[in-house]
Amino acid sequence: MSKILHYYILSDSVGDTALKVARSALAQFPEARTKLHRHNFVNDTDALNDILQEAAALDGLVFITIADNQLAKYVERFCIETGLICYNLIQPFVLEIQRRLEVEPSEIAGAQHELSDAYFKRIEAIEFCIQYDDGRDPSGMDEAEIIIIGISRTGKTPLSMYLGTLGYKVLNIPLIPENEPPVELFKTDKKKIIGLTNDPYTINRLRETRMIEYGMDSGTRYASIKRVEEELNFADELYRQLDCPVINVVDRSIEESATIILDIMNMPVRYN
Amino acid sequence: MSKILHYYILSDSVGDTALKVARSALAQFPEARTKLHRHNFVNDTDALNDILQEAAALDGLVFITIADNQLAKYVERFCIETGLICYNLIQPFVLEIQRRLEVEPSEIAGAQHELSDAYFKRIEAIEFCIQYDDGRDPSGMDEAEIIIIGISRTGKTPLSMYLGTLGYKVLNIPLIPENEPPVELFKTDKKKIIGLTNDPYTINRLRETRMIEYGMDSGTRYASIKRVEEELNFADELYRQLDCPVINVVDRSIEESATIILDIMNMPVRYN
Repeated sequence: MSKILHYYILSDSVGDTALKVARSALAQFPEARTKLHRHNFVNDTDALNDILQEAAALDGLVFITIADNQLAKYVERFCIETGLICYNLIQPFVLEIQRRLEVEPSEIAGAQHELSDAYFKRIEAIEFCIQYDDGRDPSGMDEAEIIIIGISRTGKTPLSMYLGTLGYKVLNIPLIPENEPPVELFKTDKKKIIGLTNDPYTINRLRETRMIEYGMDSGTRYASIKRVEEELNFADELYRQLDCPVINVVDRSIEESATIILDIMNMPVRYN
Repeated sequence: MSKILHYYILSDSVGDTALKVARSALAQFPEARTKLHRHNFVNDTDALNDILQEAAALDGLVFITIADNQLAKYVERFCIETGLICYNLIQPFVLEIQRRLEVEPSEIAGAQHELSDAYFKRIEAIEFCIQYDDGRDPSGMDEAEIIIIGISRTGKTPLSMYLGTLGYKVLNIPLIPENEPPVELFKTDKKKIIGLTNDPYTINRLRETRMIEYGMDSGTRYASIKRVEEELNFADELYRQLDCPVINVVDRSIEESATIILDIMNMPVRYN
């Protein structure tokens, strides 16, 4: 397969909705050779025309999110005239919603811009997640919306930070057999607690990598499969005691684990 | 306007592509009353049937990402029979790509699942961002891919963490007129540096809020407009000296600022 698929992301705003759709579709073709052409904040027909001409010449696949009605119409005409295939990933849905609700759309590009209150809340959540990362301070448990526990290298930190960027206050606690978990864990609302687990071999590989990065011998006790299994047993026992849901993060993306957590906790969707 | 628009997100994977599209469109109707019905990891026709029946009864708008061809066909038939409007946000694009590339799609639900290498890299990036947050350690500048500088409350931390979840190693340095910026800043590759600025009144409001949260008087020098302007002038002077691009984050979402940074730096898109 030698053909390159050129794909265009064209938006009068950031364009990440269109990008997400294009990448979801392209993910079905892991072997495909593709080239991304991304153009954000396009807001006049001249700029649009240049990009579309190039796309047509390269037989590109065009994904657009253009909220401005005039610009969208311009693209539509161009495509009819040239046979370019172009998916508008906002207009058709906006028109259908408009028909149903009988209200006019704002047509403001990137109407997703956050109100300052939402922005403040996200900042606060991210700062919370950093402050209470890695068991730094168990006293935040009551304020936390989600408490993630797990042994080293089960992905507590990345998951917490990702949830933080979505606006959730997450505190995470590392589990170590030699240390008693903080007493606050047994006093807080159990519904907020999520246990992470992972395949022992994956954890072991992650630990070996970490040891090498630290310039240490990868054959330490920390990175031995026997030790990992011992720690996982300790964690399982605690999860049973706390009666908390457990997520196995093996082969899951950060987004996927995050979605599962929000589903389990029946949390509203915030920013996405 | 009293009508509620019910919208359904239905996926044989996480469903966040469909959710992103639906929310982009709905953002054009800030006053609309909407109710989200989200169903992830749906993988049999019985479950699908129950959800679609409910959606039809509520005259819902359905956004789906179903990679499995049999399930997608089932939905299609259901919609033809009942007149339900349903947007498949993956199949049409997959079919078009398949036609062009002449290869079969994997049809694996959530083919976006990360390979372990990509997952490891994201973990590493997020951990880097935490380790080098808020000027904790300027020695990471050479390893950093992006260096964000700015005065207090310009949003360095949330932006760094968000970029971290996208897989970028970001280091950020707070600017304070009384402190010399770290010497490493003048020795590192200048192309990596981004200055943040913001409207003085917004910064002031953020600082007042922070003071109140800390249980302190909001009328401190830190939160006075004169002080904020003094700091902003100091930062502007440094930005000129470093000749670095400056982003005004006022009224921008975290995603928008992040996109602008990646555009300026001509960085490849990683995870989105």
